Amino acid sequence: MKKPVIGITMGDPASIGPEISVKALTDEHILSICDPIIVGDAAVMEDAVAVVCPGQVRIRAIENVKDAVFEPGVINVLDMKLVDMDKLEYGKVSAMCGEAAFRYVEKVIKLAMDGEIDATVTNALNKAAINLAGHHFAGHTEIYAHYTGTKDYTMMLAHENLRVVHVSTHVSLREACDRVKKDRVLSCIRIADDACRRLGMAEPRVAVAGLNPHSGEGGLFGREEIDEISPAIEAARAEGINVDGPVPPDTVFSKARGGWYDIVVAMYHDQGHIPLKVSGFVYDQATGRWGSVAGVNITLGLPIIRVSVDHGTAFGHAHQGLANHVSLMNSIEYAATFANNR
Amino acid sequence: MKKPVIGITMGDPASIGPEISVKALTDEHILSICDPIIVGDAAVMEDAVAVVCPGQVRIRAIENVKDAVFEPGVINVLDMKLVDMDKLEYGKVSAMCGEAAFRYVEKVIKLAMDGEIDATVTNALNKAAINLAGHHFAGHTEIYAHYTGTKDYTMMLAHENLRVVHVSTHVSLREACDRVKKDRVLSCIRIADDACRRLGMAEPRVAVAGLNPHSGEGGLFGREEIDEISPAIEAARAEGINVDGPVPPDTVFSKARGGWYDIVVAMYHDQGHIPLKVSGFVYDQATGRWGSVAGVNITLGLPIIRVSVDHGTAFGHAHQGLANHVSLMNSIEYAATFANNR
Repeated sequence: MKKPVIGITMGDPASIGPEISVKALTDEHILSICDPIIVGDAAVMEDAVAVVCPGQVRIRAIENVKDAVFEPGVINVLDMKLVDMDKLEYGKVSAMCGEAAFRYVEKVIKLAMDGEIDATVTNALNKAAINLAGHHFAGHTEIYAHYTGTKDYTMMLAHENLRVVHVSTHVSLREACDRVKKDRVLSCIRIADDACRRLGMAEPRVAVAGLNPHSGEGGLFGREEIDEISPAIEAARAEGINVDGPVPPDTVFSKARGGWYDIVVAMYHDQGHIPLKVSGFVYDQATGRWGSVAGVNITLGLPIIRVSVDHGTAFGHAHQGLANHVSLMNSIEYAATFANNR
Repeated sequence: MKKPVIGITMGDPASIGPEISVKALTDEHILSICDPIIVGDAAVMEDAVAVVCPGQVRIRAIENVKDAVFEPGVINVLDMKLVDMDKLEYGKVSAMCGEAAFRYVEKVIKLAMDGEIDATVTNALNKAAINLAGHHFAGHTEIYAHYTGTKDYTMMLAHENLRVVHVSTHVSLREACDRVKKDRVLSCIRIADDACRRLGMAEPRVAVAGLNPHSGEGGLFGREEIDEISPAIEAARAEGINVDGPVPPDTVFSKARGGWYDIVVAMYHDQGHIPLKVSGFVYDQATGRWGSVAGVNITLGLPIIRVSVDHGTAFGHAHQGLANHVSLMNSIEYAATFANNR
């Protein structure tokens, strides 16, 4: 089987993006499942090699995807030449880095839309930096939606065997309650089922979480389960989807982690984000750093594949060579799996 | 130091309560930290011994706490003689068992209020069963509040180093939003700080979670953090409490698990319950059972100490000798620690 070509943005040049990219793209497993290309600046990647594994890997600057040559010990970088190394300050928000980070994303989207690459993966950017550079987007997802002309998309988070899609994300908790409507829940169930199929599962088992504690305990505290969620579940079942729920929010994620479900439809941002981060993020008080930040963020509903690391720019630890690259590796693995099941 | 005497309800006789009680009360560590007494039925406990460790432990039926003799190989049971063994059906809801479970709770509260025991621990009861028996309470907490004349109490959950108190619990998510008020949040911060001190911590570090995703991102989605939560935090700080927040809900629990905070004030039921159960409950799909149900439930604000297992009656697995007793052991440990720090 031909390996999928995956475009990976370098992220904000002043962040941990460059160094975790070096780490991930020298990993044997990653090289065995895909042909990765960094969309970024070759000079910054050279500097990252210097702190991660000096002399052990070569950066090959290319202008076009077709110039890439995939061989061990070499990282292909589609060199956008947007960073002035004399001005680069690691760990600092700047318009120069915001501009660069934005252009990498714009480029990787174009490459995927043009069919030059099979999937995209994004490192973290800094919202303040891209705004300083004059690009007024809330984040990656909105940039992708804009440049691909997508209106209906959904955030999926994944860590190990826990996968979650969200009925709503960046709205207040009160508005999140308002957004729990049959049509939207049904649409998310379909998206969840489809995502699992695109991950290679033949018969996905979808769980739908309740909104209220104990799923409202029969209407005792909250009626959304009765009025909106259960009708959506019944409609999905009538379409042949294997779906269970509403499952009480405080046990559905433990059951999913235990293998009972392949994916959970969460009713709001933190209902899905809390279990994912409790499961994937391990904070080390001694070092004041996240010891592990596993987990990936996937935008479903786009015409192209987009998987992102599930952590930020970590400016405070940039360019020390110590940053953890597990989330980036997981992201590349997910992107490759999606690409293989298209 | 004299060991605290801990009264432990047997829970619903048809549940896993009796067998996990046998397991916990034959554990050397448990016997080293307290003098435990089961408040239940001796005949049911005998039957539990028969499936857990036949011939290896003796049930001593007593009528009064003062008759207990604490020695290895013996479990003291304050024998309420409420179960007709000919009628007992394991795994079934019944008025007989509901009545018995209710009376054990009533009794253990009285023993603690009278100072005959130092702390109470409860095994699970079944709400339908106690209702069948004519006792119309939503659960243990309400029974305790009623019989101790307590109006202002708070649910605390704990698993390993993750501890959470809740601003609200069994109300709809919409009502939970309404209940995020400065006075209540401040009261919960004080209760959280006090609980940690009563667990022996000299300088507790309290975190307060936000209500909205990203703590509302500066008012962009939700204003409760600005209008209610932050003022409560400032007031608590003015009282000398070491308190941080509002911390974004999706990272505060990972930080607490990593040792950054001793306790988290959660804004609603599932915000606190999801991370606790993801951390403590492990579902085993192969057996269709919870492989581990660690974690305890503590009622704060009562005049007596009350710690409960954080799982249900598990009727489906009752009287097979396979049920996991970790949550009960954790509960007894917490009760002993509270008793030692009174």
